Amino acid sequence: MIIVMSQNATKEQIENVEKALTDLGFKTHPIVGDVKTVIGAIGDKRHLNTNYISTMPGVENIVPIMKPYKLAGKELQKNPTIVQVGDVKIGGTEVVVMAGPCAIENMETYLETAEKVKQAGAKILRGGAFKPRTSPYAFQGLEEDGLKIMAAAREATGLKLVTEVVDTRDVELVASYTDIIQIGARNMQNFRLLKEVGMYQKPVLLKRGVAATIEEWLMAAEYILSEGNPNVILCERGIRTYETATRNTIDMSAIPVIKELSHLPIILDPSHAAGTWKYVNALSKGAIATGADGLIIEVHSSPDAALCDGPQSLLPSKFEQLMKELAPVAEAVGRTL
Amino acid sequence: MIIVMSQNATKEQIENVEKALTDLGFKTHPIVGDVKTVIGAIGDKRHLNTNYISTMPGVENIVPIMKPYKLAGKELQKNPTIVQVGDVKIGGTEVVVMAGPCAIENMETYLETAEKVKQAGAKILRGGAFKPRTSPYAFQGLEEDGLKIMAAAREATGLKLVTEVVDTRDVELVASYTDIIQIGARNMQNFRLLKEVGMYQKPVLLKRGVAATIEEWLMAAEYILSEGNPNVILCERGIRTYETATRNTIDMSAIPVIKELSHLPIILDPSHAAGTWKYVNALSKGAIATGADGLIIEVHSSPDAALCDGPQSLLPSKFEQLMKELAPVAEAVGRTL
Amino acid sequence: MIIVMSQNATKEQIENVEKALTDLGFKTHPIVGDVKTVIGAIGDKRHLNTNYISTMPGVENIVPIMKPYKLAGKELQKNPTIVQVGDVKIGGTEVVVMAGPCAIENMETYLETAEKVKQAGAKILRGGAFKPRTSPYAFQGLEEDGLKIMAAAREATGLKLVTEVVDTRDVELVASYTDIIQIGARNMQNFRLLKEVGMYQKPVLLKRGVAATIEEWLMAAEYILSEGNPNVILCERGIRTYETATRNTIDMSAIPVIKELSHLPIILDPSHAAGTWKYVNALSKGAIATGADGLIIEVHSSPDAALCDGPQSLLPSKFEQLMKELAPVAEAVGRTL
Amino acid sequence: MIIVMSQNATKEQIENVEKALTDLGFKTHPIVGDVKTVIGAIGDKRHLNTNYISTMPGVENIVPIMKPYKLAGKELQKNPTIVQVGDVKIGGTEVVVMAGPCAIENMETYLETAEKVKQAGAKILRGGAFKPRTSPYAFQGLEEDGLKIMAAAREATGLKLVTEVVDTRDVELVASYTDIIQIGARNMQNFRLLKEVGMYQKPVLLKRGVAATIEEWLMAAEYILSEGNPNVILCERGIRTYETATRNTIDMSAIPVIKELSHLPIILDPSHAAGTWKYVNALSKGAIATGADGLIIEVHSSPDAALCDGPQSLLPSKFEQLMKELAPVAEAVGRTL
Repeated sequence: MIIVMSQNATKEQIENVEKALTDLGFKTHPIVGDVKTVIGAIGDKRHLNTNYISTMPGVENIVPIMKPYKLAGKELQKNPTIVQVGDVKIGGTEVVVMAGPCAIENMETYLETAEKVKQAGAKILRGGAFKPRTSPYAFQGLEEDGLKIMAAAREATGLKLVTEVVDTRDVELVASYTDIIQIGARNMQNFRLLKEVGMYQKPVLLKRGVAATIEEWLMAAEYILSEGNPNVILCERGIRTYETATRNTIDMSAIPVIKELSHLPIILDPSHAAGTWKYVNALSKGAIATGADGLIIEVHSSPDAALCDGPQSLLPSKFEQLMKELAPVAEAVGRTL
Repeated sequence: MIIVMSQNATKEQIENVEKALTDLGFKTHPIVGDVKTVIGAIGDKRHLNTNYISTMPGVENIVPIMKPYKLAGKELQKNPTIVQVGDVKIGGTEVVVMAGPCAIENMETYLETAEKVKQAGAKILRGGAFKPRTSPYAFQGLEEDGLKIMAAAREATGLKLVTEVVDTRDVELVASYTDIIQIGARNMQNFRLLKEVGMYQKPVLLKRGVAATIEEWLMAAEYILSEGNPNVILCERGIRTYETATRNTIDMSAIPVIKELSHLPIILDPSHAAGTWKYVNALSKGAIATGADGLIIEVHSSPDAALCDGPQSLLPSKFEQLMKELAPVAEAVGRTL
Repeated sequence: MIIVMSQNATKEQIENVEKALTDLGFKTHPIVGDVKTVIGAIGDKRHLNTNYISTMPGVENIVPIMKPYKLAGKELQKNPTIVQVGDVKIGGTEVVVMAGPCAIENMETYLETAEKVKQAGAKILRGGAFKPRTSPYAFQGLEEDGLKIMAAAREATGLKLVTEVVDTRDVELVASYTDIIQIGARNMQNFRLLKEVGMYQKPVLLKRGVAATIEEWLMAAEYILSEGNPNVILCERGIRTYETATRNTIDMSAIPVIKELSHLPIILDPSHAAGTWKYVNALSKGAIATGADGLIIEVHSSPDAALCDGPQSLLPSKFEQLMKELAPVAEAVGRTL
Repeated sequence: MIIVMSQNATKEQIENVEKALTDLGFKTHPIVGDVKTVIGAIGDKRHLNTNYISTMPGVENIVPIMKPYKLAGKELQKNPTIVQVGDVKIGGTEVVVMAGPCAIENMETYLETAEKVKQAGAKILRGGAFKPRTSPYAFQGLEEDGLKIMAAAREATGLKLVTEVVDTRDVELVASYTDIIQIGARNMQNFRLLKEVGMYQKPVLLKRGVAATIEEWLMAAEYILSEGNPNVILCERGIRTYETATRNTIDMSAIPVIKELSHLPIILDPSHAAGTWKYVNALSKGAIATGADGLIIEVHSSPDAALCDGPQSLLPSKFEQLMKELAPVAEAVGRTL
């Protein structure tokens, strides 16, 4: 790291900082400029607490040179991670589409939607049994009954399952049913929950927090990876900005940024980003052309009766049409669907 | 609520929406404008799922008229809530200052800091035993050992305690030690945790999420209130914006906004907002003049050795000086310190 | 519009608001709810000042029903506008690519770049003669000498020209040289400049302000349209958010939103959005698949010597490669390049 | 500055960067770390274009060490600038209040408001003759007729004047009437306008752009200062964030940040920040306690009839009350009003 000393730093202050760095195990390397002095500190000390250096008299600020994550970055692994979910590969040449309703409401409509997304070409079935809702008065999910319905749909269709967990106490239960454990945007920095899912080998779909930087998102992945679970799939789902024309602002550039910084696969959730089904078609095509490894899309056989997020769900017929339109886009960028 | 129909909505579509609203128990009231029709829907249905109305053909958008929260707002309670923590009243005429280090590191330094903040006039002692840290490699807190140190400091000083809980599994333990349970910014929408602390009568310090709207914050309070715990203290601690000169941007206007919308007390955390001790003095005075009911300030007897957030901690001497400067400001706005 | 009265509004206050609305020419339509009263005000009064209604005693807030823009929206024109620049059509089936350096530096390198972007398939040549720079010490452009170099490059290549104007005093001069007048992001709300370019019939490329909402952007277009110039091309170039991994956050969903709200064509500027050439390829493909009508891309024959924005410029060889990769993407969404 | 080379940079790439820096006149100083090499480049080259270094092969990024502004910072001037407007001093011990309506509408109401703000203790009279309005259909100001009314009010009351200029072509005219020239938020990066007002010696009130960083704001001040006009007053007026409870989010921490980075005075505009008069009282007190050198407040004798921004204007009676409440707050922080 680089320590920038302020213009008025005294010789003694500079020496004190050098000494403190040496005590921490760094080799120091001062550069005396015309106006300011900076001190290069050599050594990988990401595990050390170096906060206090920035409070020493004469220090203006500290510039880290190393990324704060190790396992999520490319230093130790250059090749892309391919997460295997049964026979489905996420992060390879194939673009993988996950689809299904926001919340599971009952066996009948869930099975109906499951069959339809399967026919249209989805490989993974989504559905929420535990729902984090802004209002305490909103539908909170069927909990284990919902998981059982999901398992029945897997049985019926052969689709793999992805569903969210919202409480450390439920991880074991959810893991026993699902094929991919989802960590929702609101829990991206629920570090206890991240550690808990890190103790399994089940693939984890890690949604980006609604105001998380890409670096914080990769640090959240690091929590999971550092517990021993290498199967992390990142999911961009829109960030919070001042613009209100869409529910969130999809950060499409997160796709090439993640591809540059990390080996982990990244998929996109156009439904939650847009907040309305109207823009899902355009954003899905855009995501694949930009380089996403997959999509997770809300589909509901009757969105007007959905207990959750109806407005952003596609009708199965619109989803089928979308899948047809996605195929040539995937092909145009050298991938399959 | 008001349903705005699109310019091209047909007569049949308008009738269908009216029928759907009637089926939900609303009385409807259409207004036919020159260009568009809007439908007024009378009835308080905050517990109902009306999402799907917005997906009906011809509907442009829905405008809610009622606030989504009930208990946190002023509809049912007009007088300010005063949260009683032993003999300390939060939300009354007195401005209450909470102070202490970010994380508890050991008995000795914690007791030393506790004595000093007590002497300077703080009424509540803060300290973190469970620390949510961005990096898995950073110090995560002493856990129950930390709580024991806090209890010893209460014994020694008579100060009340505030400390954070980060996992539903720890709520009972934390509640058995502390006087105020803190919900941190990252957990503001950890709804399971909110429900859990709602089941106790212990006061809860609810920090605003780093990108939470004031409405979402009040909805988080609603989760706690609706479980039966009326003792919620709101804490503004800076929001995420594009500006990087401070760690977060303190939203000072949240103080009068909360005073208008809610009966709950609101305090301010200038240390986390600024990210550096340098601005804590100015922001603390500003907060009190703006109308805050209290402050929570990081103080550490040797911030250069702190295992967490050293740069934003005040030295006890600077805290003492701040307390002296705060008194006339409190007086200037008709309060005591 | 809808006037929402507060819960405590008196009968007299409600009547006063109704009277004020009637005086302004509205027909009023009160809806008495269980808790609040709302008043529907019928009539298109976008040109009237109705601000003061919101300050009347008992008024909680006002909900506009009509969009504030008329000419930029679809009320009066449903078919897409196709802006004709010589024989180039922007907004039709063909995706139009504009390319060239950020600033014009000298005849030789500009001509070299112009020839290369022409060969690769660009239709419009960009270049800055007047540069709005954050620092007063940075290169401010060659001014009229730059425009002359651009004219020579048009002569040599047959490409059409697009260049920025930054001062009302220069509009006539710039319009006499260029084929498309560019209004930069920093001037999107320089209303005098908008009015000035509205007095010409030259096509205007209107960049979105760095923190402008889509509604404000369409209102800026309205300024130009309302002066009589119908040839407006919108250009999304990234918005300011908290994320720092890219210079700005490209708002890809602006493409379908604009297609829904307006008849004006929209192109994308991936170079300014990303701030680095590395992400231009991915974002360009994504933009076309999402539905953009064109792209404007920085290309410089030696970006390492560029006086402005070198890091985000593509080498001509990389631009040529990009154009080859874009063709199948355009085809996959039913367009040509 | 510091050049961070990527992990894979070759020896040759590092040497090439060193050579390029030497050619630009820097002395170089490489630090070879365990993983990466960084190169310190010594020399103050803020006027040089060093952009292209960041595009050289093997370069990961560049970290500037010097602030980009010179005249606006404290390197050359440590003592606070006191801007003298006749006998009013801005930036000294006295807190200076500017007040008046948003737009000038007619002689009678303007004079009435002017008299009242004078009696309440304001020292400077505000008023808009040229109004930048989001909608082309909104009132655009009385232009020179408005300036004449302002001059008459100065004559009548002895108050100094502050008014906005929005076009380079009007600077001379506006400067001939007003005592302080205002640059509005939308024009903070209208660099031609900044240069134009920099050519006068009239004090300039430079509002912060709605999404401007503090660094960009100081760079805008630098434009004015570098043309030779040292009389710049900064004005914080709220920034754009995701929060919609207030029109903008007042960045109160900008006050201590500017006090640390710059010698220029800073005042606050609570009216535009809040967008409603309801929060002006609380924010005004907060601003002064935080350390602002003054306030600019909208006051209108009948805000319900105002042609512009009525909802955020105080009635003269409320303004008078506010001035009474401000005095003890100013005193509490060692200042006068």
